[in-house]
Amino acid sequence: MSVNFEGRLWSREDLLGRFRKVRRRTEELAAPLSPEDQTIQSMESASPVRWHLAHTTWFFDTFVLSMHDESWEGVDPSFRERFNSYYQGVGPSWPRARRGGLSRPTSEEVREYRRVVDEAMVSFLSRSTGSARWWAAVEIGLEHEGQHQELLLTDIKHGLWSQLGSPVYGELRRRSRPAKGGRRASWVGFQSGIYEVGHGGPGFAFDHEGPRHRVFLEDFEVASRPVTCGEYLEFMIDGGYDDPQWWLSQGWEVRQAEGWRGPLYWEDRGTDHGDAQWQVYTLRGWQEVNRAEPVAFVSFFEADAYARWAMARLPTEAEWEVAAATREVEGHFAEEDLFHPRPVGGAPGALHGLFGDVWEWTGSPYVAYPGFRPWTGVLGEYNGKFMCNQYVLRGGSCLTGREFLRPTTRNYFSPETRWQCAGFRLARTMS
Amino acid sequence: MSVNFEGRLWSREDLLGRFRKVRRRTEELAAPLSPEDQTIQSMESASPVRWHLAHTTWFFDTFVLSMHDESWEGVDPSFRERFNSYYQGVGPSWPRARRGGLSRPTSEEVREYRRVVDEAMVSFLSRSTGSARWWAAVEIGLEHEGQHQELLLTDIKHGLWSQLGSPVYGELRRRSRPAKGGRRASWVGFQSGIYEVGHGGPGFAFDHEGPRHRVFLEDFEVASRPVTCGEYLEFMIDGGYDDPQWWLSQGWEVRQAEGWRGPLYWEDRGTDHGDAQWQVYTLRGWQEVNRAEPVAFVSFFEADAYARWAMARLPTEAEWEVAAATREVEGHFAEEDLFHPRPVGGAPGALHGLFGDVWEWTGSPYVAYPGFRPWTGVLGEYNGKFMCNQYVLRGGSCLTGREFLRPTTRNYFSPETRWQCAGFRLARTMS
Amino acid sequence: MSVNFEGRLWSREDLLGRFRKVRRRTEELAAPLSPEDQTIQSMESASPVRWHLAHTTWFFDTFVLSMHDESWEGVDPSFRERFNSYYQGVGPSWPRARRGGLSRPTSEEVREYRRVVDEAMVSFLSRSTGSARWWAAVEIGLEHEGQHQELLLTDIKHGLWSQLGSPVYGELRRRSRPAKGGRRASWVGFQSGIYEVGHGGPGFAFDHEGPRHRVFLEDFEVASRPVTCGEYLEFMIDGGYDDPQWWLSQGWEVRQAEGWRGPLYWEDRGTDHGDAQWQVYTLRGWQEVNRAEPVAFVSFFEADAYARWAMARLPTEAEWEVAAATREVEGHFAEEDLFHPRPVGGAPGALHGLFGDVWEWTGSPYVAYPGFRPWTGVLGEYNGKFMCNQYVLRGGSCLTGREFLRPTTRNYFSPETRWQCAGFRLARTMS
Amino acid sequence: MSVNFEGRLWSREDLLGRFRKVRRRTEELAAPLSPEDQTIQSMESASPVRWHLAHTTWFFDTFVLSMHDESWEGVDPSFRERFNSYYQGVGPSWPRARRGGLSRPTSEEVREYRRVVDEAMVSFLSRSTGSARWWAAVEIGLEHEGQHQELLLTDIKHGLWSQLGSPVYGELRRRSRPAKGGRRASWVGFQSGIYEVGHGGPGFAFDHEGPRHRVFLEDFEVASRPVTCGEYLEFMIDGGYDDPQWWLSQGWEVRQAEGWRGPLYWEDRGTDHGDAQWQVYTLRGWQEVNRAEPVAFVSFFEADAYARWAMARLPTEAEWEVAAATREVEGHFAEEDLFHPRPVGGAPGALHGLFGDVWEWTGSPYVAYPGFRPWTGVLGEYNGKFMCNQYVLRGGSCLTGREFLRPTTRNYFSPETRWQCAGFRLARTMS
Repeated sequence: MSVNFEGRLWSREDLLGRFRKVRRRTEELAAPLSPEDQTIQSMESASPVRWHLAHTTWFFDTFVLSMHDESWEGVDPSFRERFNSYYQGVGPSWPRARRGGLSRPTSEEVREYRRVVDEAMVSFLSRSTGSARWWAAVEIGLEHEGQHQELLLTDIKHGLWSQLGSPVYGELRRRSRPAKGGRRASWVGFQSGIYEVGHGGPGFAFDHEGPRHRVFLEDFEVASRPVTCGEYLEFMIDGGYDDPQWWLSQGWEVRQAEGWRGPLYWEDRGTDHGDAQWQVYTLRGWQEVNRAEPVAFVSFFEADAYARWAMARLPTEAEWEVAAATREVEGHFAEEDLFHPRPVGGAPGALHGLFGDVWEWTGSPYVAYPGFRPWTGVLGEYNGKFMCNQYVLRGGSCLTGREFLRPTTRNYFSPETRWQCAGFRLARTMS
Repeated sequence: MSVNFEGRLWSREDLLGRFRKVRRRTEELAAPLSPEDQTIQSMESASPVRWHLAHTTWFFDTFVLSMHDESWEGVDPSFRERFNSYYQGVGPSWPRARRGGLSRPTSEEVREYRRVVDEAMVSFLSRSTGSARWWAAVEIGLEHEGQHQELLLTDIKHGLWSQLGSPVYGELRRRSRPAKGGRRASWVGFQSGIYEVGHGGPGFAFDHEGPRHRVFLEDFEVASRPVTCGEYLEFMIDGGYDDPQWWLSQGWEVRQAEGWRGPLYWEDRGTDHGDAQWQVYTLRGWQEVNRAEPVAFVSFFEADAYARWAMARLPTEAEWEVAAATREVEGHFAEEDLFHPRPVGGAPGALHGLFGDVWEWTGSPYVAYPGFRPWTGVLGEYNGKFMCNQYVLRGGSCLTGREFLRPTTRNYFSPETRWQCAGFRLARTMS
Repeated sequence: MSVNFEGRLWSREDLLGRFRKVRRRTEELAAPLSPEDQTIQSMESASPVRWHLAHTTWFFDTFVLSMHDESWEGVDPSFRERFNSYYQGVGPSWPRARRGGLSRPTSEEVREYRRVVDEAMVSFLSRSTGSARWWAAVEIGLEHEGQHQELLLTDIKHGLWSQLGSPVYGELRRRSRPAKGGRRASWVGFQSGIYEVGHGGPGFAFDHEGPRHRVFLEDFEVASRPVTCGEYLEFMIDGGYDDPQWWLSQGWEVRQAEGWRGPLYWEDRGTDHGDAQWQVYTLRGWQEVNRAEPVAFVSFFEADAYARWAMARLPTEAEWEVAAATREVEGHFAEEDLFHPRPVGGAPGALHGLFGDVWEWTGSPYVAYPGFRPWTGVLGEYNGKFMCNQYVLRGGSCLTGREFLRPTTRNYFSPETRWQCAGFRLARTMS
Repeated sequence: MSVNFEGRLWSREDLLGRFRKVRRRTEELAAPLSPEDQTIQSMESASPVRWHLAHTTWFFDTFVLSMHDESWEGVDPSFRERFNSYYQGVGPSWPRARRGGLSRPTSEEVREYRRVVDEAMVSFLSRSTGSARWWAAVEIGLEHEGQHQELLLTDIKHGLWSQLGSPVYGELRRRSRPAKGGRRASWVGFQSGIYEVGHGGPGFAFDHEGPRHRVFLEDFEVASRPVTCGEYLEFMIDGGYDDPQWWLSQGWEVRQAEGWRGPLYWEDRGTDHGDAQWQVYTLRGWQEVNRAEPVAFVSFFEADAYARWAMARLPTEAEWEVAAATREVEGHFAEEDLFHPRPVGGAPGALHGLFGDVWEWTGSPYVAYPGFRPWTGVLGEYNGKFMCNQYVLRGGSCLTGREFLRPTTRNYFSPETRWQCAGFRLARTMS
């Protein structure tokens, strides 16, 4: 059976299959972690793993079962508040900064919560024949869980690294290809004109990806690949972190206050004789910085400062999307279970590494597209209310599930944040 | 004699005359204020009046005399750091938050500093025949001083209001026209297409106003006039400050933390029986809120929340500029010495109040135009390094000098700031 | 075999027996708690249960085995820093505020750490024949662990209460005796003169309990029992929390900032008609406030304000000790596994409830006794360096192990802290 | 005419004369300062000079004229709140942290306020024949103003030093005697026994100086003079600021957070070759540190750390007072207008420098004496409510007026404060 709703068409079997797969994957990602690992919260922006496991379940509980399934009795009335992230329309939510203070429900009880909700969801999905409006909510719930799979990895990486001795998430497999010296990046040009960007058409997309609309772009060029660790090291060696001329004023303040000397997760294990020897913490342990890999875990401020130093700039998100429209969505994603970027590059004159490996900071503040309408109801809070003091990132990373990424996907973070797997590529305006 | 430099043409007489006029005006604005009034700093964002008087002088001292006049010996070597606002290229600057801790030089000594620099400037302007490159710096210095004239009024208003009893800057003249009930605003439409915006051509403009470039705009409508106090009161009465659904997430946090219940400078002097009676603090004292005046001294967050509540949005800065290009730059500016907005409105179907009265928040984060190049040298720090987490305002206010405003002028502030004279007008995308 | 060291005499069998008992008790206290419960840290002052379990083990590892047992190889070199609370002489210590960020070692690994150290300790205790200096360290380690048994309960109470729904540590047994209306307290008088206070003689005591020394006390009276919840409620009803005249200036600031309206763990479940109905959170769940119980979990500031309101004051610690010297050390301690104060009182004219139930705030800042010498070596950091901005509490509580309390025991906390089980009794100077 | 009240006896002429003298002196101290100097507030703990001038006047306005003189009409009703320091019984008070935000009344208006109140006071003092209760308030007002004369100098010193270039209060007179190498300090012993301390008898004293009462002191020794800069330098050179073993735990935290390397107002102008050359900022400008002067402007934490390093301790306040009772109250006070300590010392075996030059930190937290009763009414807030987290200082300084100091005077500050003119002397318990 298939259902059609506001232009989206689902087959019951597909949705059921996808539901099972997504839910299973989340649990697999949490599996290597002890109850203690699942409880800690290393900073206000990060959430405990247990919270991710429960919140993604809460999403189906709240927006599907509670709203559409009359037979649903719920699991625990306190969960409504406990696992509400920020939806004012649902009522109060337990403060984000104190998620790490919750020891209940335990990991096992969270597992049980997932089991009960999954059972109810599968049953409901199997028999529901009524209005298909809620099928949309199921799909959003799956996309939502996909985002949290990435956050789970992002947060646990920060949580493990923050500890004495920086324990690992999983065994280190020797995998980094020897650095190939790295072909120099080249510029790929695009001509001025009216372009269409944003999501339109039949597939799923978040509300803020649309509507599809026209933009005018002046002539521009985009680098063939993201900036690598080797290139970024040159910026560091050239004193980039000590020279305010490259930095936005706010960026310089943050850099001073935080004492940044390199990307997050980098550590100088240099000798006393002065040579820096940079190691990088990965989910599988410390390893030497590989100059051919795209630099990752940098803030917008660092990306922007590097670009200025390199006499270039970051692409706007429209430019990025126009450039990316010329390529297939393929690359290195979370399915490979590597969870660290791989060296990128390839034939000159073409674009490489747009998708996967690292999210790419764009120079565009996160704003609504012309004609943007948030989803109706409480889910309208999903994106729209965060359109302030954030920058757009594009293209997904090695922590992103391939199936959750579209060429129009808009990710967004504050310019000072660094714990998401973000790098960048350069652009410039031709003169 | 006239001088031509990079496309700008100045006559020596004009520049001399303008220099004298601008410098005199600044002193007139400070004249009603005692040495004590000129010393206080009411918050980190505001600066003491004495500092404005000295810093504008420092600008000519540093960027004109010290760089171009070999005979210039300077006044006090400590001034270089003391009155440097933020130019890293000039060396260290005394911390902004501690400007109010400086009791030296005294008001009288600052006056003397101005006198000596003015004398040197007039002499140099009168005799200089060499390279005209520095004439550009003189003009920038004058535009810079124009901006500080507005800041001086903005800051002293906050400084006086912050005190017990809220003393006044000058005598209250009974002036507000009786509220006329206020014609309802109407929508003025513009068609989709490619438009040109930004500064081009011969006159002065700040670096970030250019280059002139093309943008594509979808069909849009702009309100015929800014939102009035009367309309804003309806938002307040409807519980707008208590309902998170209208607010950006960050805006709601600020509103909660600060306990906002209305615009800055508004105070409810209502009776115990519950009727609110809003008074507003002006530089000339407290007066009843006039429903026909444009609402002023609101943050971007409040403007944005109001717009959402009114089923509209703020115009982008490109939309604003396209709309404003249809009107003359005329309105109520600082030259009238009223320093408070006047009721606006007029014939339906036309645009009113675009210039003067209140700056208008746009929905556009402050970013570089395509092809933007900061001024060369230290003055490149003037604008570019602030392009982060700020929103653009357009159109000038009753605290802005008329001569310092262009249709392309871009003002910018953080979205939570309220002490600048800012209101807003609505826009919408036609569907 | 017995060992004599600096006046202390131990029998090997006694020490071995005591070691086994104390270590077992700690584990029993942690047993009801899941790994998640053992991981959370609800505020900077509190520590995770896992940390208490490991730190008390670290104490023996560091100060006994590592220093005295040459065959000891240690368990994990990172533990030295990881579980160091504050001993600068031992090297760096992991920051207290971030103890809740450590997910490693897990609860199970901590259990194993305890097992290995216990085995080594028992073996060493059984065979050691050399210098007896380290027997002192063993005894300190046991007293230290006794203190942490109390802290474990104190901290987990705060950690559970801080959560949504305030889960319990154990089953609620219906146990509070019906409130008996409570005999009024009476005054018990002592005459002026020179008294001896502080520890002297053969038994164990912490360094700061001595030396025994003379003090002169003017005539004073001490209340026959601690202030009860019923009496404290009168203070609350009389507006005690809203009247600054009763409060120390710093106390008033804290009360304002924190919004205190009653003791920590009290919650008003009153009806809309206005009558307050106070419930109190205990380790076994919420129950109605029992007017006959001593009030507990109040700060020094509240105790002091109450005393002023009651036209009295708190006793000095010398007065308290002189009064307490007239009674046996008996009362309601942690051995009863009730973990909540019981109603106190008894025959008029006598002193009741000095020991057990609630620690009693004294009016004495925590300072060194005349002639105080800290323990030699690193253990000198145990108490001396905290003699600043703290107040002394006396008498132990229902969370204190009976065996760890002496009439000379000095507990100390900052005046604003409330999460320890502290009440108070009144005193006055006769005129 | 003379008046007798609660044991105090005043002659009208004496009081009138003293009133005139004290009021004049305050104005003389402010005279060298511009209106700008009188407006700044360099930190929350310090107050603007204008505020001191007005607040001391407010004291007579509020506690004498408004309460006792029916003909008094007041000057400005807003002054009641504006210049209230902290008396809750008088109503609200303008926040201390924002005193520097008040530009009104101006210096001239404050002068006028003083003039009007002085006139009314002199008139009232000249004619009053009724109840003498208010004569006590006049005397308290004068002692109060004496304290503020010292605070005025203390605060303006901090305010001037905090500025770029550290301007001076007055001309530097070359005055420091050449350092005499400094006789070593010797110990002066006192025998154990019951002593009487605290104020008793006919003269004025603050409430907290009494009642006179008995204390028992064990044998103790006190150093013959305060610790000198030369001795303190040895502590610094020995790494005293880098070794936590000497510091209280809270002291070490402050030292780390603030980056202390020496006393406040000291600055190392050493050469690159490494030798430190310490200069000290005085109200008359920078000068070389004189090794023979008592060290000044150190916190309790530094005094306590030094004492530990020197294998000694600070005297208790009772010990200090017992020792001081053997000497006349004479020394170097503010009347000499030097405002900086002079070298101290003298014949061995005797006590020197107890009074004047520097306040001496004692090891005693500030608590009530046995039987302490605060003054009745609002003035009861003068001292009592500050008895928390402060330490007692004794003996006055070169900024204290001689007439305002008694052997029983108790000054008190938080242990981390350094901007008052405080040094210390050593003590020890004989064993």
